[in-house]
Amino acid sequence: MKAVILASGLSKRMNDKKPKPLLRLLGIPIIEHTIRKLISRNYKVVVVYHREEIKEYLSKNFPEIEFVYNPEPERENGYSLYLVKNYVEDDFLLLMSDHYYGDEFFNKVKRYERTVLFVSKFVYDEEEATKVKVDGENIISIGKNLKDYDFFDTGFFYCKKEIFSYIERIVKDRYKITITDIMIELSKDKKIGYEIIEEIWFDIDTRKDLIFAEKFLEKRLIKKEDGIISRNINRKISIKLSKFLVRYNIFTPNVVTIISFILGIISSIMFLMNKYILAGILTQISSIIDGCDGEIARIKSMRSKFGAVLDSILDRYADSLIFFSAAISYGFSTITAIAIFLTLTATILISYTSHLTNLRPKIMSRDVRLFLVMLGSLLTVFNEILLLYTLIAIGIISHLDVFVSILRYKKLGSKY
Amino acid sequence: MKAVILASGLSKRMNDKKPKPLLRLLGIPIIEHTIRKLISRNYKVVVVYHREEIKEYLSKNFPEIEFVYNPEPERENGYSLYLVKNYVEDDFLLLMSDHYYGDEFFNKVKRYERTVLFVSKFVYDEEEATKVKVDGENIISIGKNLKDYDFFDTGFFYCKKEIFSYIERIVKDRYKITITDIMIELSKDKKIGYEIIEEIWFDIDTRKDLIFAEKFLEKRLIKKEDGIISRNINRKISIKLSKFLVRYNIFTPNVVTIISFILGIISSIMFLMNKYILAGILTQISSIIDGCDGEIARIKSMRSKFGAVLDSILDRYADSLIFFSAAISYGFSTITAIAIFLTLTATILISYTSHLTNLRPKIMSRDVRLFLVMLGSLLTVFNEILLLYTLIAIGIISHLDVFVSILRYKKLGSKY
Repeated sequence: MKAVILASGLSKRMNDKKPKPLLRLLGIPIIEHTIRKLISRNYKVVVVYHREEIKEYLSKNFPEIEFVYNPEPERENGYSLYLVKNYVEDDFLLLMSDHYYGDEFFNKVKRYERTVLFVSKFVYDEEEATKVKVDGENIISIGKNLKDYDFFDTGFFYCKKEIFSYIERIVKDRYKITITDIMIELSKDKKIGYEIIEEIWFDIDTRKDLIFAEKFLEKRLIKKEDGIISRNINRKISIKLSKFLVRYNIFTPNVVTIISFILGIISSIMFLMNKYILAGILTQISSIIDGCDGEIARIKSMRSKFGAVLDSILDRYADSLIFFSAAISYGFSTITAIAIFLTLTATILISYTSHLTNLRPKIMSRDVRLFLVMLGSLLTVFNEILLLYTLIAIGIISHLDVFVSILRYKKLGSKY
Repeated sequence: MKAVILASGLSKRMNDKKPKPLLRLLGIPIIEHTIRKLISRNYKVVVVYHREEIKEYLSKNFPEIEFVYNPEPERENGYSLYLVKNYVEDDFLLLMSDHYYGDEFFNKVKRYERTVLFVSKFVYDEEEATKVKVDGENIISIGKNLKDYDFFDTGFFYCKKEIFSYIERIVKDRYKITITDIMIELSKDKKIGYEIIEEIWFDIDTRKDLIFAEKFLEKRLIKKEDGIISRNINRKISIKLSKFLVRYNIFTPNVVTIISFILGIISSIMFLMNKYILAGILTQISSIIDGCDGEIARIKSMRSKFGAVLDSILDRYADSLIFFSAAISYGFSTITAIAIFLTLTATILISYTSHLTNLRPKIMSRDVRLFLVMLGSLLTVFNEILLLYTLIAIGIISHLDVFVSILRYKKLGSKY
């Protein structure tokens, strides 16, 4: 199916030299979020543009996009839509280039029997929003100044090709045509339905909107299963880093996974060389970068099962190397052997258990384990043996965590 | 819902002192398989019996069962059914005590609008089987001697209470009434439908039937993901053992899991004491018993998610202890350290990877790893160091197995 993005607006309210769709939201242009979500779902994207920068940026990054030039952007977005008439054969999606749409929009699309507007109960700037009044399955009125309304227009449409004949009815009489004008025409014939979306969306008109959207989406990058260190320290840094890395196509999620793994290997070598402080700091850096792969994958719609599995397994290898090297650096002794056994088994078993039970460890998530390794490494300033004790403590607490998970899982109601 | 099991047959074809339903199939009475499947699905079980041994055995093991005494078993199974008239209020299941029904029978039951006979395309003894002819959604004829038929009667029914009024129509005129007689009456009024079952079932009439069913069901206890050692050695022993252990209620699957784990601990202590041969043999015994928990759970319908998780985690602990103890028994040295690192990480990561990817290791499944540990232990007869080398080899091959799984998972078609 085709998806048409209207990107020839004049963005009067944004004081930027850059066209609005190219302003960066989480490091990539606003329009790129939508394009990536579309392409990863196999839509053929058509972009209506006016400013050359838009075509230039997009054609470089997404050669498969079709472009339609709009020489008269002042005729408004309804006219922009009219220009794609000969570029779509059948049903198509219609989206705005300055909106951010969550995944739910794309996941909810199905075959509809008529044109459908995706609507929401939520909006950031109520005054500027287009309101929608519905009756049963029909949209009965639509406009910015409705007093009595049910939803907000999200600017995300499933269109039937008949929409162009409706545009033709009004295009002769008017110089400016908005999408809202077209919707009003459709609603007169009960030719427009709606689909309710629960997820957040943003219509980015001003710099304030952009900042709000960015803050909101950043918070969503923090996973609810993140440990206390990840939530309060690692994510603050990794998100900044990810927003920078997403600009470069070379930093795919899997490449970043491998970079984090290599850093883990280097820090384990530093441990073997008894360079504890350096090793500890590298461990923590590796732990921070470990957050970036998932963030980049989510920002750029590049999530994959393989990526998740690769990340999980390489994390376990990195952990094993770090704990083993840190312990063995104290030479061969019974206490070293105990430390190796406790930490090596703990660091893998805690993840294994959490995968089996779907329960996150109460304390010793990976961010916490590696942060404690760094703390232990820093403690070697006072006394070198303190790192070894730290390792043993991490091991013991992690095993307790496994034990607690088993009990919690049993409690959660299994029959025997 | 209630489930009625008819257990007052005279079992003329079986030359046993024991009533047929009490003959052991996989270690527990034939009837007990059905009772456990019913009780674990919250059915209230009613058993119609004639011989006192049946009531005695069942009431001891399943105090919740209701019993109905049939003083005239020679009046056939239709009359037995008639006796429960006042024991059921609404729809109920009707089953035969000398049949083995697979899980699919119980899982397929839903609310039906009329009496339904569960039928199958398969039967062990075609000549003795009751045949069924259908037309559309109706059963149109039923009997042992039908020449033209579509299915076999499995003796598993979903009954409407109206079935008793059909019995009353014929009970006055006849001394003997079979279920088949009743079905014929129902079919005349199009009051009986059918449900097709694909899974195996057995009507156990003769000792030969019993042996065939036992052989077949034993084979089903071998899981398709079993490794080569498990398939060819461990299962042969563990199934025999399980068939013995199921007689005792104390040996629940979880208790057996813990016994296998304790054996693992003991063998790791033996490794630490350099008693390699004994330790190796104990390791293999523990590996064999590790198969019993699942077998008992399947035989006795006691499978649980918690049991599976407990088994997985304790297996990893046992493995870790065994590999660590075996390696460290050689004293502290670089090669020992390498062996510990390789085996400890491998033995957990190989299971971890297989859980994440849903791909079984190509070579180093647990049965193979532990079998090789035993072989390595036996090799110490020639040279003590050979066990250590074996451990390193197990570690390396296991890590290769992990690597291969990652590649296979990528190939299986993930996007990035």
